This record gives sequence, C-alpha cells and structure tokens, in this order.
Amino acid sequence: MVMKLYDFDLSGNCYKVRLLCALLNVPVDFVPVDLKSGAHKRSPLIDLNAFGQIPIFEDNELILRDSHAILVYIARKWGGEAWLPTDAGSMALVTQWLMVAENEISRGQADARRHDKFGAQLDVVEAREKATRVLSIMDKHLADRDWLVLDRPTIADIACMPYVAVGWEGGVPFDPYPAVAAWVGRIKKLPHFVGMPGM
Amino acid sequence: MVMKLYDFDLSGNCYKVRLLCALLNVPVDFVPVDLKSGAHKRSPLIDLNAFGQIPIFEDNELILRDSHAILVYIARKWGGEAWLPTDAGSMALVTQWLMVAENEISRGQADARRHDKFGAQLDVVEAREKATRVLSIMDKHLADRDWLVLDRPTIADIACMPYVAVGWEGGVPFDPYPAVAAWVGRIKKLPHFVGMPGM
Repeated sequence: MVMKLYDFDLSGNCYKVRLLCALLNVPVDFVPVDLKSGAHKRSPLIDLNAFGQIPIFEDNELILRDSHAILVYIARKWGGEAWLPTDAGSMALVTQWLMVAENEISRGQADARRHDKFGAQLDVVEAREKATRVLSIMDKHLADRDWLVLDRPTIADIACMPYVAVGWEGGVPFDPYPAVAAWVGRIKKLPHFVGMPGM
Repeated sequence: MVMKLYDFDLSGNCYKVRLLCALLNVPVDFVPVDLKSGAHKRSPLIDLNAFGQIPIFEDNELILRDSHAILVYIARKWGGEAWLPTDAGSMALVTQWLMVAENEISRGQADARRHDKFGAQLDVVEAREKATRVLSIMDKHLADRDWLVLDRPTIADIACMPYVAVGWEGGVPFDPYPAVAAWVGRIKKLPHFVGMPGM
C-alpha cells in the first residue's frame, strides 16, 4: 500500500511533511483536502484525526496526525541518524525546536497568518508580538551557527522554517533578521528542496 | 557534577520533569526559581534560556529548555525503550501526544489556569473552550485503553496529565470525563509517583 498524506497546499504544516519527503525521496501520495468546505471536520477525516486538522499521514495500518509527529516518523523510518539522532542529548536538542514550532511559532507567525490570510478571529497584534520575539531569539541563536542544532540540517529546521518564511503573509517578514534570512536561504539550497506558495 | 532542574513548585511544566525523575529514580538537584521577582527573565537564567521560561535542565555541559524536550532526554538516557521507544511508529505516536501537551493543552487548561491563578491577561473563555474540547477528545480516546499510546505509561502520559489534573484551578475540572479521571488515577498509582500542589 502506498503512503498517503492528506494535504492542503497553503498549509505550512502540510508543507513540512512534503518538504521532508522530498529531501529524503520518500514516495507519498498527496490527497488534497477541501478545507474551505470543512472536509477535515467531517467523516471520514474526523475519524482519522479527532482534532479535525491536517496533515494526516497513513502508512498501512498506522495513522498519524500532527506535522511534527509525522516528521519524527519519516526521519526515524527513512532518515537514519541524520535528521533525528537517537542519542539522548541530540534528540532532546532537536525536540526543543520542534516545540518552538508547535508553540511559539504557532502562536506567533502561524496565528498572524491565519488571521490575515484566512480570516481567523484572534488577537493579531499579540500574535505579531510573539512572532517578532521568536525572530529575535532565532536571529541571535543563528548568528554563529548554520543550523538550529547540531552541525547539519535536522527536522528542527524543517519544523521551524515554513511559517517563518511565509511570515510576511501575517505581517511579520523575516527580512530584518539577517541570520534568519541566511538560514532560510541555506535550507532552500538543500538538494531536492521544494517550496510552498508564498515562500 | 550533579544534574540540576531550575524549578517552580506550582509550574505544571516543571512538575512533569520532577515526576519522570521520581518514576525513574533519576537524582536531580532542584533549584527553586523566584518567578514572582522575574528571575527567569534576567541573567543568569535568561542566558540559559532565551525564551525566559522554566524548567531548565542542566546535565554537565548540556543545557535544555522546554519540559517536553527534557522528558525526551530523561526517557532516552535513563528509561531504555520503556518511556520513549525508538522505533519509528511508536516514537511518532508518543510524539503526537507531546504535541497535544505543547499546543492544545497549553492553549487550553494551562492558559485558563494562568489566567485564574496567576492573573495572566488572556481570553479565558476561549481557553476554557479549548480545554473542554481536549477533554472530550481524550475521554473518547481513553474509553477503551489504559494509556494514551502503547500498552504502558510513556512520556505521552507524563506530558498530558499535569495540566489536565489541575485544570479545576482554571475552571476546567476533569471530573465529568470518566475515562480521563480513571487515567489520572492510574498514573497516580504508578510506583514512586509524586504529586504537585493542587492535584
């Protein structure tokens, strides 16, 4: 059975999975989901993910939700030790940044973009403040290193880059942050890189 | 050198680390942080975690932030395959629930409690709606299983339980959700379990 990704082209979270699959040459069928009609909130998709969100990933009997959990799966299954190492320290360092993507960037860049681009009702001023704070922290962190952790790209970079890169769609461009801009540029130059709309 | 946890007794995120250390008998020095005076926003702590939050965990040269990344570290270093298995599918299933703790429960129960107990300025009605939604999903999910994933307790349970268990401090008690209540009870009966204030 072929693997499936329930997908939406404008979703940064779906894009994270598409990007890692491209970089690792993992063959996946993309199944477009009609978010506008609320397909993710109804059967059959709500039966695959009670949280009513995409991406959802299927590999035979295994059904996974949450972009970052899916990145973990793909990295562990097809990436060897490269994209998510299993030693305690390295794995924890990568995980730190998965959590920044799931929390700070989600409440910052992703929320601001959901407001501006998709009309979500939320406090966009607060979201932009959070986004700016993350950018400032990331810029300092990246000033003397090429990747968020370790000496190579990992799923930490894949998780954090997309909503930063399309942050301008929520009024939070990354251009004023030179180390962040250089890092985004570095990811774009990885072999087999694919982009997403707005990037 | 002894390991250190920069800690606050009322923080559910710090408690997650204390609980896993207790369950695995990992010796750690707890360093109380005076959150009221803003010690986490100043040197020396801000130099350890630019996000200005605790817990922070030190093991010799390694400095870790984010409770869930710290759980990953402790589970990998002292828990063998029990608390965070390394096969792709199991690790991803555990990670899904770490992400629910980092996102949905954080925006739900934890935010509502921050508002009610610590005076944080935020939309508490929305936070309680999110908390109730998570409880409803968890209750269905736990109706026919003992643990969030796999056939045993993992760091998924450790990550999700604390803010659910003290949810009443934010106006979101778990008592109306029988499967959630049974699950919290199961965790409390684990050998070497320790609680936190309000639990």
